[in-house]
Amino acid sequence: MESIDSTWSEQEQVIAKHAFDVAYEREVFALVRLVSEKANTLVEIEDVWQLHDFLSARRHEIDGKYDYRYSILPFVFAQLVQQGWLRLEELEGLAPEKLAKIVALTRMSY
Amino acid sequence: MESIDSTWSEQEQVIAKHAFDVAYEREVFALVRLVSEKANTLVEIEDVWQLHDFLSARRHEIDGKYDYRYSILPFVFAQLVQQGWLRLEELEGLAPEKLAKIVALTRMSY
Repeated sequence: MESIDSTWSEQEQVIAKHAFDVAYEREVFALVRLVSEKANTLVEIEDVWQLHDFLSARRHEIDGKYDYRYSILPFVFAQLVQQGWLRLEELEGLAPEKLAKIVALTRMSY
Repeated sequence: MESIDSTWSEQEQVIAKHAFDVAYEREVFALVRLVSEKANTLVEIEDVWQLHDFLSARRHEIDGKYDYRYSILPFVFAQLVQQGWLRLEELEGLAPEKLAKIVALTRMSY
C-alpha cells in the first residue's frame, strides 16, 4: 500500500513544481544580489577567501535542499516555508493530509 | 654535501623573502580587483557558481604556488617570473648559480 505522500495527482504535481521553482528563484535571486553586494566590499585577499567559503557553503546547502523527489517534498516545502522562501498559501491545492504534514513539519526545527 | 640551492645567506634570505612577498601582494591585489569586477557582472545563479569555481581554482593554485621552502624557491621564483608577478631584477643579490638556475627554469613550461 502506498502512503499518502507517495501519490501526487497531476494537479498536485503542477502546484508542487510551481511552488518549488518559485522558491528556488527567490532564493537564488537573493543570493545573486547578496554576492554582488558582498563583492563590492572586497578589499583584502582574506575578504575574497571568505566570499569563497560563503559560496561553498551556500552552494552545498542549495544543492542539497532543492531535491525534487515526491517522497521528501513535504520536508523540502516545510524547510522552504520556515526559511521564508515559500508561503503556505502557495501550496494550496495539495491534499489536506499533505498540507497538514507540511504545517506540522514547519513547527519542527532542523 | 649540501647543494648550492639549500644554502641561503642571510642577505639572500632577505632578498628572497621580499621578492616572494612582493609577488604575492601583486597577485592577490590583482585577484581582489578581478573578483570585484566579475562580481559586478553577476546576473544569474550560474554566474555565481562560475565565480565560485573560479575562486576554488585560484585559491588552490595560489595556496600551492606560494610555498616558501628554500629547496623549491628557485622553481617558485621561475614560475612567478614567467607569470609576470616578479621581475628577474628583483632577485638581484642572490648567488649567480641560483639566478642562473631560475633563468633556466623560466624557459621551461609548466
